[in-house]
Amino acid sequence: MSRLPAASLVEFVAQAFLSLGVPEREARTVAGLMVEADLLGYATHGVFRLRQYAARLRDGGCNAAATPHVLRETAATALVDGDNGLGHLSMTMACELAMAKARETGIGWIGVRGSNHAGPAALYVRPQAAAGMIGICAAVGSANHVAPYGGTDLLLGTNPIAMATPGGADPFVLDMATTVAAVGKIKTLAQRGEAMPEGWMVGRDGKPLTDPTRLDEGFLLPIGGGKGYGLSMAIGLLAGVLNGAAFGSDVVDFTADTTSATNTGQFVAAIDIAAFGDPALFMAGATRAFAEMRASPPLPGHDPVRVPGDGREAARAGRLEAGITLHPALRADLDRLAKELDIAPLPVTEPA
Amino acid sequence: MSRLPAASLVEFVAQAFLSLGVPEREARTVAGLMVEADLLGYATHGVFRLRQYAARLRDGGCNAAATPHVLRETAATALVDGDNGLGHLSMTMACELAMAKARETGIGWIGVRGSNHAGPAALYVRPQAAAGMIGICAAVGSANHVAPYGGTDLLLGTNPIAMATPGGADPFVLDMATTVAAVGKIKTLAQRGEAMPEGWMVGRDGKPLTDPTRLDEGFLLPIGGGKGYGLSMAIGLLAGVLNGAAFGSDVVDFTADTTSATNTGQFVAAIDIAAFGDPALFMAGATRAFAEMRASPPLPGHDPVRVPGDGREAARAGRLEAGITLHPALRADLDRLAKELDIAPLPVTEPA
Repeated sequence: MSRLPAASLVEFVAQAFLSLGVPEREARTVAGLMVEADLLGYATHGVFRLRQYAARLRDGGCNAAATPHVLRETAATALVDGDNGLGHLSMTMACELAMAKARETGIGWIGVRGSNHAGPAALYVRPQAAAGMIGICAAVGSANHVAPYGGTDLLLGTNPIAMATPGGADPFVLDMATTVAAVGKIKTLAQRGEAMPEGWMVGRDGKPLTDPTRLDEGFLLPIGGGKGYGLSMAIGLLAGVLNGAAFGSDVVDFTADTTSATNTGQFVAAIDIAAFGDPALFMAGATRAFAEMRASPPLPGHDPVRVPGDGREAARAGRLEAGITLHPALRADLDRLAKELDIAPLPVTEPA
Repeated sequence: MSRLPAASLVEFVAQAFLSLGVPEREARTVAGLMVEADLLGYATHGVFRLRQYAARLRDGGCNAAATPHVLRETAATALVDGDNGLGHLSMTMACELAMAKARETGIGWIGVRGSNHAGPAALYVRPQAAAGMIGICAAVGSANHVAPYGGTDLLLGTNPIAMATPGGADPFVLDMATTVAAVGKIKTLAQRGEAMPEGWMVGRDGKPLTDPTRLDEGFLLPIGGGKGYGLSMAIGLLAGVLNGAAFGSDVVDFTADTTSATNTGQFVAAIDIAAFGDPALFMAGATRAFAEMRASPPLPGHDPVRVPGDGREAARAGRLEAGITLHPALRADLDRLAKELDIAPLPVTEPA
């Protein structure tokens, strides 16, 4: 393991993007968000993804000079065209616009098309919670790894959904794939040479698949069978079809195909708590509910009950202080990438 | 089995409500929605619930003379107070208001407090789809049957979520509990004297529970473990806490306690498809995606793939034509209820 200051990682990622033609401001925005994902513990959706993004920028699948812009707008909604740039840019615009509209009309709902993978959805709901609002976000997954319930064609992604609210020291932050396992977790196991538990994937024969390097030979299982399938379709309709973005067979596998635009679809919403009542009452109600959950005696053999988001602020502060730990496989990959892009490598570090 | 014309059932339910002090117009509205649930095949959330509603109206837990009204309002949002009446009334108001606001601002999001059980959430998203919009709805469950993930206190309900969009002959209609099984299904098995499969519930010892009459001795399992728990909490925050409605330990079990107000919380949203693009393009995209799902070759031993909502319109038309089939246990219960309320019984029918 090697441990690096967040600032060094941000600088490295920004230099990687600059070398690929991304303008300074955009390079630093995306680098900051990617490292923020690592600071928050979303290791599968942070700097780990740099190689994928770099390949798409290099090969023309993603537009380095993109200028996301609003295509349509009403008092409470908008449709953002990401101009096929890095998804972090269009999603940041959508998140800010959602909050601005929520302040005016009580809710803002921003659809996004022409986007790309944007890291963890949590990044686009946490700002709402920090501003005393509720954030909701979902995305059509960047590759189809899921079959419709009972079927065998890969027509759905992991289609994640996230929500955040204020509520005590840690905001409530849910960020979940609608599959039992997220692709990022499987890719991480593959990079580390570890096996998947049964129940994450099945092969096209319906039998369990546990080798993470065979990700493309089977399908991920939705949570709750038909329910997760239905939820995944609902997200596909809201984040994809509604925005004129890809869904179903027109989803481009953004890892396998580095030259085609993905037309990734997402949405970001913000709800102004004050439109529904006194924000102090919301905070009191949420804080009480969270405390009740945490105080529930655990089942035999279980850890204490957690509320989604618990501990992330402290973990983030710890990583800001002590540095971000990179798995040796990721560190080696970033060192190779530095050579490929002809940029300065990450600083040499002592073992953590 | 006995089969009854929908109109006879509506009249019977309306008479039951009238006998309990519900005014004419409200009695007929709720009766119509309850029978609509049966017509659509949501048998666990239709007339089956009449005894529960009647008990609460009789014992004062639910306000027969309620007048739901708007408490707060912005351009795109509102908070409806159900005045502790039958939930169908406040939810109908919320659904209509959501659509009216969506026409003005692109989206309408209506929170509801002081409500009660309102039947299947699908009833409050289908009107949006029929109007060419997208409907979303969720509710805090009317009793806590779920523990936080890894915990042992009953602090969460089945917290259902529903979504509908237009899209071909059948609208897309998802209506799902965030638990593996819904309470209505378990109550139906109990009424019929049948067992639950393993995986629906566990006892407080963490071991499987399969006797549906022991519903109150264990907890329902959320879909996807921690993910379903997180989703259930997210719904509780949006439908409950945001609206000043019950969540966590202040949820009243509406079956066990027929005298206390439940302060049930729900929300209904409507999204105007035209705010995001040409509705014809949405229809084309949705129809194509649905066709792709249905055309996916089934796994060995599986039925053809379905899209949520498939077949409901035809089944509804069939029941309108041939009558609604009541399970003998439900029929017997309604006959007993007629005597208790001193109203005319359902017509005698030939075996279906």
